[in-house]
Amino acid sequence: MTKGYFISIEGPDGAGKTTITEMVKEQLETEGYNVVHTREPGGIAIAEQIRAVILDPKNTKMDARTEALLYAAARRQHLVEKVLPALEMGKIVLCDRFVDSSIAYQGFARGIGIEEVWSINQFAIENAMPQLTLYFDIAPERGLQRINQNKGREVNRLDLEDLQFHQKVYEGYEIVRKQSSNRIQTVNADASVEKVFEQTMDIVRKALQNKD
Amino acid sequence: MTKGYFISIEGPDGAGKTTITEMVKEQLETEGYNVVHTREPGGIAIAEQIRAVILDPKNTKMDARTEALLYAAARRQHLVEKVLPALEMGKIVLCDRFVDSSIAYQGFARGIGIEEVWSINQFAIENAMPQLTLYFDIAPERGLQRINQNKGREVNRLDLEDLQFHQKVYEGYEIVRKQSSNRIQTVNADASVEKVFEQTMDIVRKALQNKD
Repeated sequence: MTKGYFISIEGPDGAGKTTITEMVKEQLETEGYNVVHTREPGGIAIAEQIRAVILDPKNTKMDARTEALLYAAARRQHLVEKVLPALEMGKIVLCDRFVDSSIAYQGFARGIGIEEVWSINQFAIENAMPQLTLYFDIAPERGLQRINQNKGREVNRLDLEDLQFHQKVYEGYEIVRKQSSNRIQTVNADASVEKVFEQTMDIVRKALQNKD
Repeated sequence: MTKGYFISIEGPDGAGKTTITEMVKEQLETEGYNVVHTREPGGIAIAEQIRAVILDPKNTKMDARTEALLYAAARRQHLVEKVLPALEMGKIVLCDRFVDSSIAYQGFARGIGIEEVWSINQFAIENAMPQLTLYFDIAPERGLQRINQNKGREVNRLDLEDLQFHQKVYEGYEIVRKQSSNRIQTVNADASVEKVFEQTMDIVRKALQNKD
């Protein structure tokens, strides 16, 4: 893990994470960096199979702890097969969602408990925490609004949750941000794409400078 | 969990667990008990899907920790959907393999660590531990011999492990048996079906008497 640089991207649904991260990747590449942009399951066959179980709309009986364990399993396999090898090769890894998502969604919003979800994630990742986490901050109602406008996207089981759930996710993220204020840097995502990209690049550049 | 009685069945592959447990179920039913004989995934759709990922012979890249998390996920769902409701209804649940299997197989034989595998299983089961565990004791080479004779059975990824692995599983079980000597009762499984059944019924009857 020492050679590359591991960045996770977090925030509520509809915060624009994917668009901005792709722009960051392209910018860093023009500056000569080797960059991987990934998200679980990230094309890893085993993690894809696990993800299919989680997102299957038929699985309405899925217990919250089952779901949390499945996320941790998919995370483990994606980390071992894709993230760690890329870091070993000295690449910058931009990972869309990582442990903090599980803490906010399963630990807090679904009410399992932050400490308990953290413990199974520790098992999954051992010590492979991101060096930097970019948190895309947007009010839950604004995020949901953006999702609903984006009609081309396939609707999965989690999108069907109501606003109340997304508000709890937001609260969960607030706790995580306080607990890990060194690692997690906040980007105001309720702005133009250009503005969000600019803020993000500022944070990333500073982090990469401090790395060397 | 207080109404019924929860018994798990453990031991190396080829110990004859399934045959004897089915006989115990029939015997207890003739004595008027309401009995459920199950094993993960136990017909629970979500747990079946998870199990399919674990046992897929194509998944040769599966990391040991991913596997352990998937077992814990399937266990959780099977527990919540099948075991706990049966116990609530006052039934005796005979569960073929439970937490101890994960400790012996993943925690010890695959080298993840007993404490670590125990921690994710605690997350999965909360406090729903069996009141009694029947351990079918057989030397690993005898167990493997029996599996190989049983040619009608479908061969899965785990059967392909070598004798060395099965010996480590056996050692793992020995540690678990020492740690939980009150809960885990040992049956000598290297005997005739009648003898094994007789020993098993003795243990079960005593446990059910002490329960009342």
